[in-house]
Amino acid sequence: MTTRVVEIVRREEFSAAHRLESPHLDEAQNRALYGPCFTDHGHNYGLEVAVRGPVDERTGMVMNLADLMRLVRTKIIDAVDHRHLNRDVDFLQGVIPTAENVAIAIWERLEAELQAFPQCQLHRIRLYESASNFVDYFGRAPSTPKR
Amino acid sequence: MTTRVVEIVRREEFSAAHRLESPHLDEAQNRALYGPCFTDHGHNYGLEVAVRGPVDERTGMVMNLADLMRLVRTKIIDAVDHRHLNRDVDFLQGVIPTAENVAIAIWERLEAELQAFPQCQLHRIRLYESASNFVDYFGRAPSTPKR
Amino acid sequence: MTTRVVEIVRREEFSAAHRLESPHLDEAQNRALYGPCFTDHGHNYGLEVAVRGPVDERTGMVMNLADLMRLVRTKIIDAVDHRHLNRDVDFLQGVIPTAENVAIAIWERLEAELQAFPQCQLHRIRLYESASNFVDYFGRAPSTPKR
Amino acid sequence: MTTRVVEIVRREEFSAAHRLESPHLDEAQNRALYGPCFTDHGHNYGLEVAVRGPVDERTGMVMNLADLMRLVRTKIIDAVDHRHLNRDVDFLQGVIPTAENVAIAIWERLEAELQAFPQCQLHRIRLYESASNFVDYFGRAPSTPKR
Amino acid sequence: MTTRVVEIVRREEFSAAHRLESPHLDEAQNRALYGPCFTDHGHNYGLEVAVRGPVDERTGMVMNLADLMRLVRTKIIDAVDHRHLNRDVDFLQGVIPTAENVAIAIWERLEAELQAFPQCQLHRIRLYESASNFVDYFGRAPSTPKR
Amino acid sequence: MTTRVVEIVRREEFSAAHRLESPHLDEAQNRALYGPCFTDHGHNYGLEVAVRGPVDERTGMVMNLADLMRLVRTKIIDAVDHRHLNRDVDFLQGVIPTAENVAIAIWERLEAELQAFPQCQLHRIRLYESASNFVDYFGRAPSTPKR
Repeated sequence: MTTRVVEIVRREEFSAAHRLESPHLDEAQNRALYGPCFTDHGHNYGLEVAVRGPVDERTGMVMNLADLMRLVRTKIIDAVDHRHLNRDVDFLQGVIPTAENVAIAIWERLEAELQAFPQCQLHRIRLYESASNFVDYFGRAPSTPKR
Repeated sequence: MTTRVVEIVRREEFSAAHRLESPHLDEAQNRALYGPCFTDHGHNYGLEVAVRGPVDERTGMVMNLADLMRLVRTKIIDAVDHRHLNRDVDFLQGVIPTAENVAIAIWERLEAELQAFPQCQLHRIRLYESASNFVDYFGRAPSTPKR
Repeated sequence: MTTRVVEIVRREEFSAAHRLESPHLDEAQNRALYGPCFTDHGHNYGLEVAVRGPVDERTGMVMNLADLMRLVRTKIIDAVDHRHLNRDVDFLQGVIPTAENVAIAIWERLEAELQAFPQCQLHRIRLYESASNFVDYFGRAPSTPKR
Repeated sequence: MTTRVVEIVRREEFSAAHRLESPHLDEAQNRALYGPCFTDHGHNYGLEVAVRGPVDERTGMVMNLADLMRLVRTKIIDAVDHRHLNRDVDFLQGVIPTAENVAIAIWERLEAELQAFPQCQLHRIRLYESASNFVDYFGRAPSTPKR
Repeated sequence: MTTRVVEIVRREEFSAAHRLESPHLDEAQNRALYGPCFTDHGHNYGLEVAVRGPVDERTGMVMNLADLMRLVRTKIIDAVDHRHLNRDVDFLQGVIPTAENVAIAIWERLEAELQAFPQCQLHRIRLYESASNFVDYFGRAPSTPKR
Repeated sequence: MTTRVVEIVRREEFSAAHRLESPHLDEAQNRALYGPCFTDHGHNYGLEVAVRGPVDERTGMVMNLADLMRLVRTKIIDAVDHRHLNRDVDFLQGVIPTAENVAIAIWERLEAELQAFPQCQLHRIRLYESASNFVDYFGRAPSTPKR
């Protein structure tokens, strides 16, 4: 039987505060660049973690969703929910917490954990700051096709 | 022709940080009461403002939605969006920024402004902290019916 | 056994064009009052019809949801979906199609139909023009409690 | 200072199977009445529990949302999530699991639990079978105002 | 004029019951693997069918959305809505109805039907079990690019 | 440090009227092809603009979201919101306003503007006519990979 490759996606939410300030810029430059985001504010972030792999014929699953849920919750949500992203999160130390950077940091943390599931690969991190603003990160692809 | 009373609702969103801490409690009590909310975090708040009044036969409207939108934006959203509710908002000074208290404070601020529209009355403030948590405030009714 | 009164709500959607223009005003006044709504535009309207009544012990239902769905679709949706509300809808002839007026017109049309279900009463028409703008109409109540 | 009465709402979701069949009807009548709902199917139910009470000046809360969440999860969600409502749920034994009846059963179960919070009263159970179908139950009011 | 390739997506919903049980495992293994999903439960599934093709200059469409809607409804929704996926659906006989497997089965059924529209190709099946869990299937690609 | 490529997405909404009619067809053919869409109707369109580029280490951003928001609003939303797409929009003159064609026209207008941001490239235009119908356009790719 042919192997079918499917992507499974788990969505979680977390509520966090953040502000945007770059250490490479002075205060006036920071204000000009980030505008209202230079002030403390917060979001109900939506996090989608997509994992790709072959469907196991014995189980009908790419990966047990319970395992994926547990990973995302214990490794990410527990660390960022009800926190200030600029101050309280180990894996964001020294990172300007834009959606882009937070998505990349989450990718790296989860990719390491997913080594325990060798048949799967992390495929995409989508991070919503709101329904109007979100980012997609697909990892460092040496030869990303245009699409 | 009979007058018809309709409620019109305008929804806006704002992104703010907050934390819960009561001046009536010590730190241990605050932690026990508020749990993770004792730490800085934030939300994309959803604010629904409901205004009730007769439909003006000449215009087909209870109140010009453009006026209601302008009121809500200039009096509330501009003051709370991309702010820390514990520190940056004049009309929340001294208020523990629970959803309950923020809704009440918004009601009082908007009710004063709506005096300029004597045919209408503020009917309800609904404040969403997330899709899972929200509150409704209907003002101080001397004789609230059970429903 | 005690009778329990429950409200059941059916939501439908329709896509329609409209513009706002009052016959009581000249063009300049219409433009000033309605702004961009004076121009043809459109919405995916959301319509919620709430019916209240006792739960029938034999069926566990206030009213067969299939009947309510059929009523709403045949009497309202078929008449307004993919139409221009100012021109194409019999029961909106002569009505300025604000959300307020469309909700009232829908109420009157459905209330007549619901005579066939004497144990129920129409309770509320909620009409969404968008997620940000909606209205609630509860009918002509001779003695509406404040809430 | 005046006491302010606020309604707080907690939303939870659960995934359950059910089918509609009345013991008062024979099979043909059941099929005619319930149509496709006579067959096993299922929903992601949305449950909103609204509790009304005065805002405690010391805490800024009507009731600790953590307590309300715990109550709803331990008393309701744990009993109905990933279950067949016709077979697996103690408090639904002998109940035709229409949205109306499930909402009433949830009300009765939660109302008993809320005795432990004497300053609050259960105000409303809203149960969504889908975004298109939901019910509201407000308890047995001896003198329900029309609205 | 250049041909433009566009993907059109139709979303439908269906309400179905299911449970997860593998014929390759004994009961204890099934319980351990599937946890609460080993029990009958259900979902409001969301199904998105994406079709890719060139935009026909004469019609402005990749494929008539009415045709796509009809295909999805008659070939899929009518077969799965208000059904038990483990028992009542011909094209799921012998399939463990995980989201992965149901998406693959829907792909195969629709791909056969889309032969009647040779200018188009089925591009993606997205199946939501809930807002938190969904899968994407893109068919058997002999040389899937990493993204 | 490695450069990370991220896609940022901005979502906006607009409310517009339209109807579908092809100049290549006579009235009977148009009616047969477009059905109810041959009549004036309207939508709350959802527009998602995805831009791809490397994350600037100094700012943590692919592109300032404020710039992207301004571009989308001034170049697209201001032109289409509260308009009739068949009559009132310069960049849609002579275009049958199907979702496919409107998405392509938006792509071309925005791609030109994004020349001012040479490190970024327009990646995708997603246009929702409703929650049930939407299209994705990725531009004219000379060698589109299957996925």
